[in-house]
Amino acid sequence: MTTHTQWTDSHCPVARTTDIVGDRWSLLIVRDAFDGTRRFSQFQRNLGIAKNILTDRLKGLVEQGILEARSNEKGTRNEYVLTERGMDLFTVIVSLRQWGERHAFIDGEPHSTLIDDTTGDPVPTLRLVNARKIGLDATNTHVRKVEQD
Amino acid sequence: MTTHTQWTDSHCPVARTTDIVGDRWSLLIVRDAFDGTRRFSQFQRNLGIAKNILTDRLKGLVEQGILEARSNEKGTRNEYVLTERGMDLFTVIVSLRQWGERHAFIDGEPHSTLIDDTTGDPVPTLRLVNARKIGLDATNTHVRKVEQD
Repeated sequence: MTTHTQWTDSHCPVARTTDIVGDRWSLLIVRDAFDGTRRFSQFQRNLGIAKNILTDRLKGLVEQGILEARSNEKGTRNEYVLTERGMDLFTVIVSLRQWGERHAFIDGEPHSTLIDDTTGDPVPTLRLVNARKIGLDATNTHVRKVEQD
Repeated sequence: MTTHTQWTDSHCPVARTTDIVGDRWSLLIVRDAFDGTRRFSQFQRNLGIAKNILTDRLKGLVEQGILEARSNEKGTRNEYVLTERGMDLFTVIVSLRQWGERHAFIDGEPHSTLIDDTTGDPVPTLRLVNARKIGLDATNTHVRKVEQD
């Protein structure tokens, strides 16, 4: 479990997640970790991020149990590896990726692509469907709030 | 299309999306807009956010084509409504919600729930599957980078 003491909106799972990983650098560090980046210097080079900000975000992600800091074989430096909890952010990163593919590029503009290893094809679009395979979106769902005492 | 001139990582759709909506307040404003919040004062009350930050984030979301600012019937104030592009962030918000449900609450701790209107049940978990219905995650996918000139 997380160690946050002050949540922005305690009953809302969206808000708790954004409290934990809801900033651009944390999300991009997680993205890079999915792609196999492990070392401070690699994150820094990939992201073009200031050292003090990278240090802060890595510390936060370790505290929140998203990344685990391990010594490398020689014991000379830390490597950062996604925990199980961090690996489970896969759907979050894919949803961000797929929205970007649909809305943040003009036709023909090059972008990286997430490939299914078993088929060699780009992965399909994430879709929320119910047990009857009906697509769900904001028009046919609603949020049930927690009943307050 | 978006009007960003400087992308953090131009070829990466994840990074373009986080450039556009990758901060906690923008994501929570979008969450509230999905729940029907439209007025500045409502956003402010829901989020407990400083007016100047809310003004800045609403302006950014309008500039990026996520929200549309409309006059209310009386023409006395703006209302903010998700555009089609903004509505398409549904999967992003749901993925954040579902990660939070799995990892940011202890057993029995109350949280809001996204309900399928047609069944009255909580919505199922978003899963990325390929055409053969094989579940995809970081272990059986990889990112194909753009070939540089």
